[in-house]
Formats: sequence, structure tokens, C-alpha cells
Amino acid sequence: MEDEPKLVIVVRKDLNLRKGKWMAQGGHASLMWLINRLDRLISLEPTVEASWLYGRQKKIVLQVPGEAELLELLNQCHAAGVSAYKVVDAGLTELPGPTFTCLAIGPDYPDRIDPITKHLQLF
Amino acid sequence: MEDEPKLVIVVRKDLNLRKGKWMAQGGHASLMWLINRLDRLISLEPTVEASWLYGRQKKIVLQVPGEAELLELLNQCHAAGVSAYKVVDAGLTELPGPTFTCLAIGPDYPDRIDPITKHLQLF
Repeated sequence: MEDEPKLVIVVRKDLNLRKGKWMAQGGHASLMWLINRLDRLISLEPTVEASWLYGRQKKIVLQVPGEAELLELLNQCHAAGVSAYKVVDAGLTELPGPTFTCLAIGPDYPDRIDPITKHLQLF
Repeated sequence: MEDEPKLVIVVRKDLNLRKGKWMAQGGHASLMWLINRLDRLISLEPTVEASWLYGRQKKIVLQVPGEAELLELLNQCHAAGVSAYKVVDAGLTELPGPTFTCLAIGPDYPDRIDPITKHLQLF
């Protein structure tokens, strides 16, 4: 099922968080599209968001060295018209202040996401 | 903001997964309510789900020793009328087969969740 829609989460390797904290970031990242695109989920037309949510909800977690590379990826997504959202942790627990922890790309089809992320390593 | 709604994710300490894999479980767990309760999100009445999603989306990750304790928690949630969902990883990558990796409880208010989870440790 190589052509099924997926959500790609790209994290910063330079942040040292507990596993539970990373799981919470994965949760935030998985909901960013919903906050911005609820209309696409309840649309009568078929959408990639509904196909993803009610399908396997494939999620891939990749890494970059730090914040600069995340911002670069965000710019590339904007340029390509691919939905991407900054995930910002409020910094109330482990982090000293609001921190851009990861980028949520999609959910979208691989032929749209892969040109932007295919060179990145698994986290 | 002790009384704000939260999603509690309870994971099995006996599973040894990569951080990226745990993040994906956090993502699955954060979406279980949506698959089952989309009607509550688009309701014209105020709901705890909408309050959580459009608020801080507080997420707490706790742990138990293994699957037996997760099933016990699930039973307790059912008995108390608190929404809880099994998160099952398909087992296509790191795990040898479909695996009950964690339990998603809520989103709901602390006075409903805490009696069930307050004795558990952070993951």
C-alpha cells in the first residue's frame, strides 16, 4: 500500500525529551490538520484527510538536526502547496519555554510528500 | 488550569519500541476519540471534545507494567462510563503482530479520569 495517504512527522534530533513527552508531541502533530481542516473531514466529497483517518492512519516519524532544518522544510512545503504545521510545545514541563518541537506534514499522498522528505532518516 | 480536559495515554512499560514508534502510538491514541465521536466535535452544543481540541489539548502519558493492567484499566473506564479506546499497532514494522500498545482515555475532565489513573506513574 505504497500509495496510501500518510502523515509525516519530522522531529528535532537536538531536543532531549522523555519518551512520554515525545508521545505527546506525536499526538499534537497528529491533530494539527484537524484544527485547520475540519471542513475537509466532514465534507461530502472524498478527501485525503478522511481517507487517512478512516484508513490505516499511516504515520512516519523522521528527524532533522535542529530548528533551522524544520523551518526550511516548512518553507518547502508551503512552496509546494503541501499542508504542514509547526508543533509548538508550551514549555510548561520539560522545556524552558515555547519550543518548535516538530513539523506535521499532511496527511497527504506520498507523491506529494516524498519529494520533500525522502532524504530524511527515521527517528 | 487543573480542571481543563485532558487525554490520558497509558502505555505498556514492557514494550521496547523506538522513540519514533512511540510517537506514532501517541498519534493513534490522540485520534481514537475522533474516529468514535466525530459527532461530538461538530455538535452545536459545547462538548468536552471540542473544548479539549481547541484548547490546550493537554496530554498526559502514564505507564503500567503490561497488557493485563491495560485491560484492567479499560474495564474500569467502561464501568465508570469514561471513554477509553485500545490502541493496537498493526505489527508491520517493529512488533511481530498486532499488539495492544496503549490505552487512550478521554478527552475528559480530571474529576472523571483521575479516580482511575491517579496511582499511575509518568512514562
